[in-house]
This record gives sequence, structure tokens and C-alpha cells, in this order.
Amino acid sequence: MMKGKIYMIPSTLGDGPIENVIPQGITSLVLDIKFYIVENVRTARRFLKKLSPEIEIDPLTFFILDKHTKAAEISQFISPAINGENIGVISEAGCPGVADPGADIISIAHLKGIQVIPLVGPSSIVLALMASGMNGQNFAFTGYLPIKPQERIKSIKHLENRSSAENQTQIFIETPYRNNHLVEDILSSCSDTTLFCIACDITSETEYISTRTIQAWKKAKPPDLHKRPCIFLLHH
Amino acid sequence: MMKGKIYMIPSTLGDGPIENVIPQGITSLVLDIKFYIVENVRTARRFLKKLSPEIEIDPLTFFILDKHTKAAEISQFISPAINGENIGVISEAGCPGVADPGADIISIAHLKGIQVIPLVGPSSIVLALMASGMNGQNFAFTGYLPIKPQERIKSIKHLENRSSAENQTQIFIETPYRNNHLVEDILSSCSDTTLFCIACDITSETEYISTRTIQAWKKAKPPDLHKRPCIFLLHH
Repeated sequence: MMKGKIYMIPSTLGDGPIENVIPQGITSLVLDIKFYIVENVRTARRFLKKLSPEIEIDPLTFFILDKHTKAAEISQFISPAINGENIGVISEAGCPGVADPGADIISIAHLKGIQVIPLVGPSSIVLALMASGMNGQNFAFTGYLPIKPQERIKSIKHLENRSSAENQTQIFIETPYRNNHLVEDILSSCSDTTLFCIACDITSETEYISTRTIQAWKKAKPPDLHKRPCIFLLHH
Repeated sequence: MMKGKIYMIPSTLGDGPIENVIPQGITSLVLDIKFYIVENVRTARRFLKKLSPEIEIDPLTFFILDKHTKAAEISQFISPAINGENIGVISEAGCPGVADPGADIISIAHLKGIQVIPLVGPSSIVLALMASGMNGQNFAFTGYLPIKPQERIKSIKHLENRSSAENQTQIFIETPYRNNHLVEDILSSCSDTTLFCIACDITSETEYISTRTIQAWKKAKPPDLHKRPCIFLLHH
């Protein structure tokens, strides 16, 4: 029997029109997929309905893959593909497998010889990098910074030093309710000439992306970022 | 006068249907843009025509931004936006500002207070990462490896060590006619348990993405990658 394929399906980041961020071709593709591995069932159902209003949600099977899912369960999620069925992977927002726990399932798929097909959609990391004006020929995404003040400052200094030593743009995120604190920590820890980009509400009406030196940010008060999804980029 | 905006417009990677990789919303947007900063005029014209067959190419102005463009020229390319006109930035393939010289123009735009809007499209780096099954919560793209044999091996070992020490997926590329040599160098330099992903012809009919241990790659002969666009990923 021919094995099914696993499609990595990006979802929207904000509330803007779906036709601005998801290619039309994906709409018809999802009509042929009956099994989904998702981070959050409610979000995934809503996204599929928005993507393809004629889709029938009730006959679909959803497996939940989040940080609480056990390794033994994950390998079972793959079984429809072994039996010839296609599977879609949808994360909470943006590209599955990037900045989320989706990668584990894919590493198992490769072991089992199942084809994995990545589809095009919004990646807040890449969109922020494109608009930042920082080096896009060498960059690193390192996820969340440590929470404890001392480790956090140390980590910011480490990112600043590495960006300088390797000409590598450093990209990171923060839990949205701590965004304003992170910006304060960056402004107080980094050198005046370091470039810092705040990219907020990407692809939404309220999108805000600005790159300035730390010195310029200190003069121009940064916008209120409380509970808004942000990507931060740094380069010295 | 209101300043114009700069739109970062991704283009196709391969010859697959454009509706699978570019959101429909971008099609109508380009009809309002008269000034373009492009890596290659011929490729950009062909892409715009494919994106929007009704577009009139002749009245458009194209500025060329490639590795030969001088810094003094770059700042002039921005002047239409200062005069209220929108500008589109299009690279040779994929997302402008990522793995290309597009970032310089954007850093000037930020200095002049011009709004930069990144649009969604295919990024071979992100698509490869999504499909690799490797850690997407911490990753680095470092561009091309050195050409000289000794430096090259040293650089491969450095990437392998860093992926292990920092749990960071290492992503890199090679000039397409040297792809097969790179794979040989990876197989002979890395540890047997290191994971290596070859992602080739992404979004094309011939797309090939596979992740295996170095040991498994040594048994399963890798496909011929000569002159095919590839992304390579490594994790130990």
C-alpha cells in the first residue's frame, strides 16, 4: 500500500484577510485531508473553516500535539499515514515545526519513510527578519530568554556579543505579557550603537516594525507591547 | 506629504503553480506599485507578469540591487518612497532580505522613517526547517560554508559541535554545482549519530526532503544534487 503524506500547514498569525497570508492552492488541498495533528483543536477547526468554508469538520480526526503530549502517543499519530491516509499538521499560529513542538512528529515520520511536504504561509520570524534590515545572510532564532534577572541580562549580553563576533542577527521572543519588561532590559543592557528591531502584530492591521539603535530607542519611547505578539531582533 | 511604503515581495522558488506559494492578496497589491528594487530585472519582470498577467511592465521603474551595487546608489533607490510612492523589493528567488543583499536598503529605510511591510511567500530555509523534523525552537542559518578543504571541514565540525552544545539546528547552503561535494564532506566529517537533512527543489515537482543519521546516509546513497537548489540542515 502507498503511504500517505504529511503536510505541514501554516496558519494565520493575526486577524487580517486570509487571502493575504495563505496561498489559494492550500484551500483545495485540505479538502482531501481527514487526519490532523494540531496544537489546539479549537484554533485548528476555526482556521480550517476560515480557509475552506465548505469543509466538513465533524468527520475529521484531530490528534493533539502540545508540550504535554507523551512520546508514545506521538508515534501513534503517524499511523494513518502508514495506512495510506494523508495527515495535516497545524500549529497554534504560523508555521508548524518552527518555534513549536511540531518537530518531534516529523522526526518519526522520516524514520518511517513517510514523505513530509512543507506548505507556504506566514512565519513571524522570517517576516520580521525581512523587514528588519538586519543581516539575513546569517541569523539565529533562540526562542525565549531566561526569566531570572541575572541570567536574562547575561543572555542578552551573550546575544549581543555573538551578533558582533559572527555578524549574526539574533532573533528571540518573549511571553507577550512580559514584552515591555524585555524591552527595558534590552535598552539598559545593550551598547548604545547596537541595532534593535521590534516587530509586533505582524500581518495584522496594527503591524509595527521598527529598527533603531539602542540610543535612538532610548529617546523615542517604544510603543506599548503588552500582550501583543512580538519578535525581537538584535545586531551589534 | 505622506511617505510611500516599502513592500518586501517574495517570489517563487521553482516552477510549480504560483497559486500554491504566493497568497492571492499580493496579486492586486503589485498593481499599485510603480517602483521596484530587484536583484535581477529579467527574473523580476517575468515573476510580476506571472503573478499578475494584466500588469503593464513598460511604465515600471526597476533599480538593480545586487552584490555589485554601491552604497551611494542604494540610498537613491529609496527616494520614490520619500516622495510618496510605494516601492516593491523582489529578490532572485524566495524572500527578499533573507540570504540575499536586500537588507541594506531596508536599514536605510528605517533610518528615514519609511514603513517596511513584509509579505508572505516561500522561504526555502523555513520550508526546509518545517519538514526536517529538527529543532525549530532554536536554529541558525549561516549561509555558505568556506570553499578551502581545511577551513570547510573545520566549519562543519564547528556547526556539529554548536548544534550539540546549544541544541541548535544548523542550516546552510552551497553553490548548486558543489552540492554533491558538500554532502561527501559532511558524511566523511560528522559523527555517525548526527542527523543530516537534505532539502532539494523545494516547492517543485521534484521536491526531495529527507532526514537521516550520517550512518544511514552512508548506507542509502544520497540523490544526485548537482545544480539543484538545496538547503542542508544538521543536528547532533
